[in-house]
Amino acid sequence: MAEKAEGSAEDRLIARYFRPLASHPGALGLADDAAILTPPPGCDLVLKADAIIGGVHFFPEDPAGAIGRKALRVNLSDLAAKGATPVGFLLSLALPDGTRDAWLADFAHGLCADAQLYGCPLLGGDTDRTPGPAMVSIAAFGTVPHGGMVPRSGATPGDYVFVSGTIGDAALGLKLRRDAQSAVRYRLEPHERDHLLARYLVPEPRLALSEPIRLHASAAMDVSDGLAGDLAKLCGASGVSAEIEIEKVPLSDAARRVIAADASGREFAMTGGDDYEIVCTMAAEKCDAFCAAALASGVAVTEIGRIVAGPAAPRFRDRNGHVLEFAHLSFSHF
Amino acid sequence: MAEKAEGSAEDRLIARYFRPLASHPGALGLADDAAILTPPPGCDLVLKADAIIGGVHFFPEDPAGAIGRKALRVNLSDLAAKGATPVGFLLSLALPDGTRDAWLADFAHGLCADAQLYGCPLLGGDTDRTPGPAMVSIAAFGTVPHGGMVPRSGATPGDYVFVSGTIGDAALGLKLRRDAQSAVRYRLEPHERDHLLARYLVPEPRLALSEPIRLHASAAMDVSDGLAGDLAKLCGASGVSAEIEIEKVPLSDAARRVIAADASGREFAMTGGDDYEIVCTMAAEKCDAFCAAALASGVAVTEIGRIVAGPAAPRFRDRNGHVLEFAHLSFSHF
Repeated sequence: MAEKAEGSAEDRLIARYFRPLASHPGALGLADDAAILTPPPGCDLVLKADAIIGGVHFFPEDPAGAIGRKALRVNLSDLAAKGATPVGFLLSLALPDGTRDAWLADFAHGLCADAQLYGCPLLGGDTDRTPGPAMVSIAAFGTVPHGGMVPRSGATPGDYVFVSGTIGDAALGLKLRRDAQSAVRYRLEPHERDHLLARYLVPEPRLALSEPIRLHASAAMDVSDGLAGDLAKLCGASGVSAEIEIEKVPLSDAARRVIAADASGREFAMTGGDDYEIVCTMAAEKCDAFCAAALASGVAVTEIGRIVAGPAAPRFRDRNGHVLEFAHLSFSHF
Repeated sequence: MAEKAEGSAEDRLIARYFRPLASHPGALGLADDAAILTPPPGCDLVLKADAIIGGVHFFPEDPAGAIGRKALRVNLSDLAAKGATPVGFLLSLALPDGTRDAWLADFAHGLCADAQLYGCPLLGGDTDRTPGPAMVSIAAFGTVPHGGMVPRSGATPGDYVFVSGTIGDAALGLKLRRDAQSAVRYRLEPHERDHLLARYLVPEPRLALSEPIRLHASAAMDVSDGLAGDLAKLCGASGVSAEIEIEKVPLSDAARRVIAADASGREFAMTGGDDYEIVCTMAAEKCDAFCAAALASGVAVTEIGRIVAGPAAPRFRDRNGHVLEFAHLSFSHF
């Protein structure tokens, strides 16, 4: 239902922009209909598919390279939380009419840089025109030793709850994108504003934590829809609850400044989403080894509370022991 | 960037409509962030991703169940052509605002029926709102014995060229969808019109041919963008050419009637796309065994010509030996 053209135009697009990303031998140079993947003996494949859509997960005017990176990174974040090592990805790309070559080149350049950085080459995929916004749908694959994927469902009462990095930056960055004047109201320094904007634009998949999580965590998931709601999902899958000390939840200087200026920023940080950090649970005797491995990995991890008997929703307490009630636990499309 | 809601709404949607499709143990009941797949020892995984978009690959008013089936089937068609046995799929679903529950139920029902029919359960995925048309992006996985995937690149001069089923029906069905009056011009019987429309609406993946192709074919691919162009791709990958006798290309009665009424229908059939048949090549000594296996599978296969030394584009000759020149070899989005 799109216009006809010489069949080779699509092939030329793929050859020019995407073949350089297809370094995996199973990609067959993107010259076949399908790719081949043979997990090493004794390994399971961990599979994840997530799409990002213009006007929903990114702004259409975002740099194309950042869009390419984000599309891959949101999937890599899941692989990291599951303790998996990336091996490759499939790409379904839907491009609006009038997409320029320069956009595509920038998109592929960003995606290629991350494919190399994270050792996750392109295996195959397809490209289409769309009457709608750009959509980048990625299916990413990783490996774990057989039976080694870290589930959501393994948390038990007494476990400590950890998160990586800092929470809330991306949600606050999105707020700044929608209302540039808010940076003035929040009295943000330019570098603080830029920090929040950057955290929204391109997340940081915590692959360096993948092995420490696989070796030590009882349960883990990535924080993509808000810490409060994602922790509730983890607790629900595990049949437990959690007591979180909100003062312990790690915040960037920029997020602290927003919250100092606007108390509602705290709830926003805890429930806003797009963090792409990892929340995981750890038996008491595992915590030292996990923290040492995390330190060696260069990714900060912070203990924020304990798993308790369920099945109530996790409670977030302030410094006075009061339980905070959130209007919404997390982001949802529906 | 979409509205906030209780986090569980998206979960409820997934639980209600998609968990019944997730019968594979590695799907973890769609209750984790990722799925687990462990190919049997000695097997390679064959991976394919293909998306369908409203207004591009289907009409937005098509029955939702047919859209779900088509989305899976276009991927299964590739697995069949590669000689693979399906094992599961990931789904990224982007839904326009205002999508009704009844639509989703119908979509999931169609997808579920095919997942069962073809032994290809849902492993995981994600759902999003989109300001654009509905988009269904599927990554499908199959297995082959190690090294057994049938490539595009294995055709050699002297091989016979076969196609499955009939060619051109779906492209003619799309023509009828766009111009209902053309059925009158072509003097189609109602059942002939319905045949062409059905072939466009829901393709038939030729998985019954998967093993015969794996055991006997030197090269294969599915015909999705038009026989002429797809055969040219196969020949290009193999470094060969082909001589096709256009009178041998199998046509349905309905397609024959269109071509009788409008000679341009023949080129349209050869280059129109959406066939989801298989074109494959076979050494002379393999043909009898292949045809016997195909007969047992219940899928018609027809020999349409020979592979010859390349690298020229395949030639389609009419009954008088004249080479037909096609304006466009195949469908392309670009």
